[in-house]
Amino acid sequence: MSVEVLSFIGGTGPEGLGLAVRFAAAGHEIVIGSRSPERAQQAVEKIRARVPGARAAGMVNQEAVGRGDIVFVTIPFAGHRDTLEALAPAIGAKVVVDVVSPLSFEGGKMAVIAVPEGSAAEQAQALLPQARVVAAFHHLDASQLMRVERPVEADVLVCADHREAKERVMALAEEIEGVRALDGGPVANSRYLEEFTVILLSLNKTYKARSSLKISGIPTRPKG
Amino acid sequence: MSVEVLSFIGGTGPEGLGLAVRFAAAGHEIVIGSRSPERAQQAVEKIRARVPGARAAGMVNQEAVGRGDIVFVTIPFAGHRDTLEALAPAIGAKVVVDVVSPLSFEGGKMAVIAVPEGSAAEQAQALLPQARVVAAFHHLDASQLMRVERPVEADVLVCADHREAKERVMALAEEIEGVRALDGGPVANSRYLEEFTVILLSLNKTYKARSSLKISGIPTRPKG
Repeated sequence: MSVEVLSFIGGTGPEGLGLAVRFAAAGHEIVIGSRSPERAQQAVEKIRARVPGARAAGMVNQEAVGRGDIVFVTIPFAGHRDTLEALAPAIGAKVVVDVVSPLSFEGGKMAVIAVPEGSAAEQAQALLPQARVVAAFHHLDASQLMRVERPVEADVLVCADHREAKERVMALAEEIEGVRALDGGPVANSRYLEEFTVILLSLNKTYKARSSLKISGIPTRPKG
Repeated sequence: MSVEVLSFIGGTGPEGLGLAVRFAAAGHEIVIGSRSPERAQQAVEKIRARVPGARAAGMVNQEAVGRGDIVFVTIPFAGHRDTLEALAPAIGAKVVVDVVSPLSFEGGKMAVIAVPEGSAAEQAQALLPQARVVAAFHHLDASQLMRVERPVEADVLVCADHREAKERVMALAEEIEGVRALDGGPVANSRYLEEFTVILLSLNKTYKARSSLKISGIPTRPKG
């Protein structure tokens, strides 16, 4: 494993923070991006509270992107297009991991937002033509990620059109204890991952649970 | 458990046949429907070869529907609308389990077909306004279902707007050894189940596997 600098656009939200905590625990350098440097710094304190000695810094999104080897997009879908358009020059040809599911929660009712490009990840790829966009981590429960002393129990499905970037993100995912990464196919498949989040959130409500996804019938490959 | 008569529209295809074998093994009476009575009879022989003493009969779809307490729809999506329109009077107010995913495989390329009603199950409900449509069993691998001596390893997600019908189908699903049934919410959620089939088929191709779905993070309820 090589240490990488992982930047999180919207790293103050639960999903970004949860992933940042896990990757800090795995020894990576974390950069939390936010519109507010104060909130970014608060998120860094939360990471350090769970991972003593974590290498983490907080700054505005634009600077965070510049520092990252890999850029995670962990913002609500409402800000997805505008945020990526504004950050496109800073992102350039980096590897972008899009974790966003295009959902709205208006009036307490969950709905999938139709994305003209097909999916959030495909929208990211359209807005960032030079970047290598990878869709992943949609189905990990944020509160489980924060409990860094416990392994998670989940498979992470990864969709991308860029083989090297996909393999890099799959290897990264498996640094989270308990995670198996699976190749979910091209980025065109990301829509079905993003939208499946509706099912997990519905299960969470019905069963008062924190559900994640696993795939049976695929023999686990030996790691290492 | 009460013995029910389960009819399969398109019961000669792999998914219908696989479910029929499992439910025959659980003691239910199976009626295989087909456009061809000869092919229906051949499917019945396949069931008996795997479940000696199975109570099973083969007949044309129209008659099969009339005999069933519960009607399974296990046809390719290409024939979904026309078949259900033709069978609507025979189906009436029965419980209909729609297993269909709206996929095409033209030229070896898999694609999701947009369904005006939202999903195959919602299309069924629109065509069969008196019936109680339940979407379920999309993610069980047909070849695993046929190996009746082995438990499957899968959760079956069930979507419906009719509570009693949903509970009946969930109880039925759990008669398949190794299956846990989970309430996936209203029939409007069925789209995300149907389309997720693309991911499992993509995994099967990539890993030369027979994948199914499991949900982690939901404590298993005691059965019985």
